[in-house]
Amino acid sequence: MTEAIKRALDEIEFGPDGLVPAIAQQHDTGEVLMMAWMGRVCYWSRSRQALWRKGETSGQVQRLHELRLDCDGDAVLLLVEQDGVACHTGRRSCFFRAWRNGGWSVIAAPLIPPEQLYPEEKP
Amino acid sequence: MTEAIKRALDEIEFGPDGLVPAIAQQHDTGEVLMMAWMGRVCYWSRSRQALWRKGETSGQVQRLHELRLDCDGDAVLLLVEQDGVACHTGRRSCFFRAWRNGGWSVIAAPLIPPEQLYPEEKP
Repeated sequence: MTEAIKRALDEIEFGPDGLVPAIAQQHDTGEVLMMAWMGRVCYWSRSRQALWRKGETSGQVQRLHELRLDCDGDAVLLLVEQDGVACHTGRRSCFFRAWRNGGWSVIAAPLIPPEQLYPEEKP
Repeated sequence: MTEAIKRALDEIEFGPDGLVPAIAQQHDTGEVLMMAWMGRVCYWSRSRQALWRKGETSGQVQRLHELRLDCDGDAVLLLVEQDGVACHTGRRSCFFRAWRNGGWSVIAAPLIPPEQLYPEEKP
């Protein structure tokens, strides 16, 4: 771990489970893509000599544009460049349900069929 | 609790602590303002006959524009109209630190002095 990464992590207030909530936002349009949990751990594939990262299976990678930290250091905002879709359902954003007229409405359609994102999960 | 609110809550996957992470985003500009935790509890002031809500002390209220729910129902996105500032430091957004050149840089200045937001906390 480099000194710079250590300094970055030092300011982040990880929860008792070692995780911090992370919001991914498309850097130019402002679209909130997903919320996930980040920990200190990075996965390293010895066979492929590469870091594990979102999109490795689906091909829908997120490139980090900028990392932001909130006032009390317990949440991070990732400004990203999202290739294709962020949601496992094949939709651009995970936040595709809106509360309208007394019920949850689906407000976005899949751009890619989920079975195309995860072909190896087919029976 | 009305039937509609009950239906809305039924789809939300609250964590073991009864809370769900909530992201507040300015509805028109896309600016991510803050991340907080929401539970099923609403506070009701009998003396004032009003719900407790963010901004009651600081005057910096958030009006809900739309409520969104993510794919697996365990995070909500609030599209809001933010009056003034969202951050207790007097900044528009809580995410005012960015990782640049190997360190955390403060990229936004307070718009309102914090002591003006919380005058009752003065000694």
